[in-house]
Amino acid sequence: MIPVIDDLIHALARLPGLGTRSAERAALALLRKPEVLSDPLVDALQAARREVRCCSVCGGFTSLDQPACALCQDALRDDTMLCVVEEPSDIYAIERSGGFRGRYHALMGKLSPSHHTGASELRIQDLIRRVEQGGIQEVLLALSTDLEGDATAGYLAEQLQRFPVTVSRLAFGLPADSGVRYSDPLTLKRAIAGRIRQGG
Amino acid sequence: MIPVIDDLIHALARLPGLGTRSAERAALALLRKPEVLSDPLVDALQAARREVRCCSVCGGFTSLDQPACALCQDALRDDTMLCVVEEPSDIYAIERSGGFRGRYHALMGKLSPSHHTGASELRIQDLIRRVEQGGIQEVLLALSTDLEGDATAGYLAEQLQRFPVTVSRLAFGLPADSGVRYSDPLTLKRAIAGRIRQGG
Repeated sequence: MIPVIDDLIHALARLPGLGTRSAERAALALLRKPEVLSDPLVDALQAARREVRCCSVCGGFTSLDQPACALCQDALRDDTMLCVVEEPSDIYAIERSGGFRGRYHALMGKLSPSHHTGASELRIQDLIRRVEQGGIQEVLLALSTDLEGDATAGYLAEQLQRFPVTVSRLAFGLPADSGVRYSDPLTLKRAIAGRIRQGG
Repeated sequence: MIPVIDDLIHALARLPGLGTRSAERAALALLRKPEVLSDPLVDALQAARREVRCCSVCGGFTSLDQPACALCQDALRDDTMLCVVEEPSDIYAIERSGGFRGRYHALMGKLSPSHHTGASELRIQDLIRRVEQGGIQEVLLALSTDLEGDATAGYLAEQLQRFPVTVSRLAFGLPADSGVRYSDPLTLKRAIAGRIRQGG
């Protein structure tokens, strides 16, 4: 394969969700139709690079010309609830669910010894400062349900102990449109432990 | 969502293999790590745009500084076999298979009334010219196994009738690592019709 094509495949394969084979497929399509596929993508990447910033309050994405993002500026949202997420993209996922009307705080990762991510690499001091300022009654930890997410949740709960806030975590259980026979043992164990009363 | 982020998601979603959801995931990752993900991708896209050309012989990809691609220039390949494919990317797929040692010819599409692709939009005249020059004994049509691929194969076979070449087509049948219960009816019908004798 021509070196510049290899470079393009590698740059695409680094994106989440693209394996080598799909990166190769995308690269060959980009080469085949540069005006339709490649040029608009370069334009969009450069515009995003120029105009998108992380919100200084929540850490989510915002436009360069906005001091804080639309969610942080929305006066109708509930200031007493703060949802802590790992990544800005988690905010979009929760917004799509329609299940939360409070404020957000993105940590920009989770505690991970294997990735050398300690507490000081995350936006934990910013989180404590927001809680310190008062007004927040509940901090909802919407973190990964893996070991590192668990460790991060434990650490945050400890750090927030001295404040008069409830610290909660997303429920564990079966995902929607799924069933017992599609679920792994740990999910099932957690779903049984957290079982809820069926209304009659 | 911020408009420039939407633009980026749309530009990514146009690539083959990326749905809206995976394009969104890729876009948010690109925004989150611009130095690691976005900048190298822009560089690779621009370099590919600048340096990759279609080979004037086979239609596959080649470097700007090469008159013809490495496959067309390779003196060790079999000049008597010509494999006709739809897209340059098909050449890479066949090369990976290791099953073909001849030359290639990419049509740059297939006959498709619904996409307004007629014979004059494809590299069919170039193909006929290559066959006319002599030396080719077999033209292997490696086209899609759909209606449009069938129509294109039929048309090409007709156009090549007047030349002393064998026109062949890839075999139909079950894919590797598959089985009867995973196969659609047409594949099975074709696999039965094309059944081969089992050595004893």
